[in-house]
Order: sequence, then C-alpha cells, then structure tokens
Amino acid sequence: MRILIDGMGGDHAPQEIVKGAIQAAREIDDTVVIIGAEDLIKAELDVQKWNGSNIEVVNATEVITNNESPAMAVRKKKDSTINRGMKMVKEGEADVFISGGSTGALLAAGLLGLGRIKGIKRPAIAAFFPQIGKDDTTLLLDCGANVDCRPEFLYQFGVMGSIFVQNVKGKESPDVRLLNVGAESEKGDELHKEAYEQLANSSINFQGNIEGREVVSGVCDVVVADGFSGNIFLKSSEGLALSIMGRLKEVLMGGTISKIAALLLAKQLKGMKKDFDYSEEGGAPILGLKGPVLKIHGSSKAYAVYNAILKARDYVESDVTGQIEKAIAESDEISSGEAVKTEA
Amino acid sequence: MRILIDGMGGDHAPQEIVKGAIQAAREIDDTVVIIGAEDLIKAELDVQKWNGSNIEVVNATEVITNNESPAMAVRKKKDSTINRGMKMVKEGEADVFISGGSTGALLAAGLLGLGRIKGIKRPAIAAFFPQIGKDDTTLLLDCGANVDCRPEFLYQFGVMGSIFVQNVKGKESPDVRLLNVGAESEKGDELHKEAYEQLANSSINFQGNIEGREVVSGVCDVVVADGFSGNIFLKSSEGLALSIMGRLKEVLMGGTISKIAALLLAKQLKGMKKDFDYSEEGGAPILGLKGPVLKIHGSSKAYAVYNAILKARDYVESDVTGQIEKAIAESDEISSGEAVKTEA
Repeated sequence: MRILIDGMGGDHAPQEIVKGAIQAAREIDDTVVIIGAEDLIKAELDVQKWNGSNIEVVNATEVITNNESPAMAVRKKKDSTINRGMKMVKEGEADVFISGGSTGALLAAGLLGLGRIKGIKRPAIAAFFPQIGKDDTTLLLDCGANVDCRPEFLYQFGVMGSIFVQNVKGKESPDVRLLNVGAESEKGDELHKEAYEQLANSSINFQGNIEGREVVSGVCDVVVADGFSGNIFLKSSEGLALSIMGRLKEVLMGGTISKIAALLLAKQLKGMKKDFDYSEEGGAPILGLKGPVLKIHGSSKAYAVYNAILKARDYVESDVTGQIEKAIAESDEISSGEAVKTEA
Repeated sequence: MRILIDGMGGDHAPQEIVKGAIQAAREIDDTVVIIGAEDLIKAELDVQKWNGSNIEVVNATEVITNNESPAMAVRKKKDSTINRGMKMVKEGEADVFISGGSTGALLAAGLLGLGRIKGIKRPAIAAFFPQIGKDDTTLLLDCGANVDCRPEFLYQFGVMGSIFVQNVKGKESPDVRLLNVGAESEKGDELHKEAYEQLANSSINFQGNIEGREVVSGVCDVVVADGFSGNIFLKSSEGLALSIMGRLKEVLMGGTISKIAALLLAKQLKGMKKDFDYSEEGGAPILGLKGPVLKIHGSSKAYAVYNAILKARDYVESDVTGQIEKAIAESDEISSGEAVKTEA
C-alpha cells in the first residue's frame, strides 16, 4: 500500500509531518509517500536520521494556505500538494491521501480532482470522537465541509455514515441520530425538521434527534449534523476537554500534597487523558469523494500524524469508498431519490 | 422585592422548587412568591417544615408541559403558571419571574404577556458560563430562543449582550465575538457572514469571530450565537463537563490508592467541580422582554433554584431591562436602524 501524506499541510509542517511519517514507517511495511518541497522534506529526513527504504518524497512546488480562497487557490496552484495529492489518488499512484492543510482547499480539490461518488450531492467530513468511559467511538458528520446545508445533504450524510460504520466497525445496523436542539421530532429550525422527515423515511436505522449533552455518553453510532453546528460541536468539545485536562494538571501540580496524589493516580489519569485525546483518533475521512482522503487537524504533531498513517491503512483496507458506491447503487437509497429532492 | 418562581416548572417540581425557595427565603428579607397548584405547594412547605413569613403562594390551576406546542398552549391555558407569571410581572405584582418550564412557552408568553423592548426584533436567552481556570464568566446569547435567525437578530443580540455585561459586571466596553466555524471574517454560512458585517459596523466593541474551542478559555465577555448553534454549544459543553467530572470520580474511586489520592485532593477537586458546575450560575435571563424573566434548567434541583433566586435579586437591582431600553433609545443603535434591515 502507498500512503500519501501532505508534507506542507498544517501548523507544524514539514517537521512534525516528517517525524510522524518516520515513526509510522518504522512500524509498517507499506510505503509512506511525502509530497511537498523536496529539499525541505529531505533535509528534515536527514535531521531525523532516517535511513529506511519505505519513505518516498514527491516534489510539489506550491502550497495552499489557510488564508487564501480555497476555490481560487485550487484553480491557480496546479502544482500544490493538495491538487497533486488528489491527482495521485485518482491515477492510482497512492491509495490514500492525508493532509492537515486547508479544509476548504481539500474539498475543492477533491471535487475537482477526484469527483463525487455517483448520487452524492455533497462530500462530508466524518470524525470519530471518543465515548467517555466506554471503549468505543461515535462518528460525527458533517464536521464542517458544508456550512450551508439543505435537508437532503443531511439525509445523505446519515446514509454515508451508516455505511461507513457498518464497514469499518462491522456493526450490523448502526444507530443514527440527528444533532438537534431537542429530542422531539418537531424540534429545530426548518432545515432540521425537514432532514428529520427524510431520515425517518429512509431505510437506515434512524433513531431520532440527539441533544448536544447526550452525544459524549455514547448512546448512538452516528451523529448527523449540518457542517456549521457539527463544527461548533466538535471544536467546543475539543476545547473544553483540553481546558479541563489542563485545569486538572494545574490542580495536581499545585502543591506538595497534590503532587503526591498525582503520583498515586498517574496510571489512571493517563488512561483518562487518552479518553479525551482527539489525536488518538486518526484522520477524518472526507466521505463522498471517489477515493480515500483523510483530513488531519492543522495543529497535528508527530503523534497525530503517526496515528493517522496507521489508521489510514485500515481505512483503505475496509474500502469504504467502494462500499459506499456499491451500497448506494444497490439499495437505490440515494440514486432513486425517493426521499431526495432535486436541486433548485 | 418580590421574587416570583414557577412552582410547577421543571422535572423536579414542586418538591425541589419549594426546597430551594425555602433555602433562599431563610437567607434574604425579600418575599419569595411561588405560583402553582396551591394545595401541592402548601403541602410541600409543610413537609419541609417552613414556618417563616416571607414565602407566599399564589394559586394557578394550569401547567404548560414540554410536550405541547408552546404557542397553542400559551393561548389556551390562560391560568397556567407561565401566563400568570408574566402578567404578575407586567402588573408590578412581582419584580422578576423565574421558571424551569418550557422555554418555548416562556418566550411565547413573554412576547404576549410582557412584550418586547421597543426596537428589539427577537428576545434572546442569555447564559453566563464559567471560564475555566479563571474567576470569571462569559455571556452566551442566544442559547436557543431563536433557532431560525436572521443577521439582524444576531446583531441585536450583540448589542443587548454588551449592555447586559456593562450593567451587571460594570465592564466599560465588553469584548463581543461571534461564534463561528473559523476566525477569519469571511468564514461561515450566509447568516454569519452577514451578521459579521452588521456587528463590525456597529458601535459596540466587536472583536470578530470566535471558534468553539476558544470560548471556554475566556478570551471575551460576550459570545453571540444563533439560537441553534448556541444551544448545541451550551448543551454539549454541559454534557461533556459532566461526563468528564463523572469519569474523574470513577477514576478516583477505582481502588484503595486512588481513594487515598482523592482524599489528598478533596479540596482542590471541589474547587474544580465548581468551575464546571452550571448550577452555580443562576438563571438565564431572557433579554429583550419588557421585564425581568429568568429561565432555569428543567432539571434544576433545590441548589440551582436557591442560586437563581439569590442571583435574581442582583438582576432586578441592576435594572438590565431598563438599561437596555434606555441604551437603545439613547444610542439610536437599534432604533435608527443604520445597520438593521427591515423585516421581509
């Protein structure tokens, strides 16, 4: 397998990307391909004393930053890591593309370079997040690819999420819910009321609305959200978990007695920290594209990169893209358009 | 002062309401008025062995539940605690009304019975939540009163929030931000892009967008949100904080050594729990109504009720309603409508 990673994407590129790639390459037989400024990446490989054979470097001369318009940048910067990465997946030169670069650019380049699965109106970013106190995760989609949604997008996110969890986790009939401001079916704005209807009329195991406070306790497998509130949910949860763990650390380091207590608790607290550590979860797939693409956090450090590369292998092996394509074609769930309104 | 509380609103009414009312009445000279089924409430006062003189009971024969359409119920149930409560505030029989009942019904009854402050298009629910590790709070509005928003609503929420924090906390020029999916001005859906423009053109101290992950660290005084994502933010933060504290408790009670450590840390952990305890914060005012109305959580127990009653006194004394009315009339910020579009 050839796992392609964007060497220039994210706040700590290329150093942390290269570091994470080396960590992963030392553990696996697959080839890790790093795309970006060849000289910088090779220099970093030297700094990190890499002497193995399963890392390749592919040169790309341009980088798309977070500060430019994604659509414009994707059209203009043909030799950017993001455009080239999508092209390599399309042409079979890589089995999966991982990037910590601009989400908007990844989407634009994905749509342009790879295209959508037939029948899918909008790709969605899907992320697993930890269920607190349980050894399991919940899939949230969309995490922010589509800030302006229509009801049929949410319905399709539910179908894709259900297929994804079935294939990756082997769950027979994943429990799918809609992130909303109340549990009752009539709750929410027009978008969510209409999406509720479409999800309820579909063949997936839709179990109704879920409120923000229930999600982390792990009552369901898939949470469908519009990209705006999904993004608010994900980022505020991340921020809060980090703040609380930071505060706990302060409390534990606050005095001699606390420090002793902290030593006594070291093992358990480490386990707890892992519960809330989003970097454990690997990259977030962009579901609906005609090829495996994983988005990692812009703030990803080596450990998150390493994790994303390992998880990417499972993602490729479970052939989620192919399974979504197949399930949609077979079930006519999306292609027949029973519950789907046509675009205006 | 006469502080009116809905004896029938919430999951634990009337028992916990009465219990909290007694706790508060023992500490203050003001009169606590409980409205609801007189026989039930009086029986509960007897059970709790109340023998003071500053609790009054006002009989109301109907209750609006969470399961009925708010607008319908408010029109039909004239003698409900919520309708009667608003009327008592309007007619000066109470200085503030506190309720843990249906948010929708409180809003509908508030609009019908009390009315809006001149110039305000939509009232908003405003809640203070704790800044982690700091002895301060941030105001979030709207927390869920308006799930379908227009840009000018968000702009008005910013103005009201700014005035509120100025009056209650004495901050000269509160730092106001817009809850959005990215920090840059061009981020978000159409609603938030347009709201950004209007806020940026206003006279309040608008400092741009804020992402979900930054809010709890206390970078600003006021966070403006549409009611849908504001509600998602608030509930998911509450849920996560509770889950994490629950998990911590499990960890600390998990074995003999952990229990010893927990004893050593007891004081610090209690302080930390307080950081995340939303019941410390009192009720959430519905800003924009022509009178003080505080919404408390439906799940409120005695301590939250007690707290809401004490905080309600400060709220009445700082005359937020009057200050908003005055500030709007004086500044022409809202009434002149420079940045405000007329309704369609």
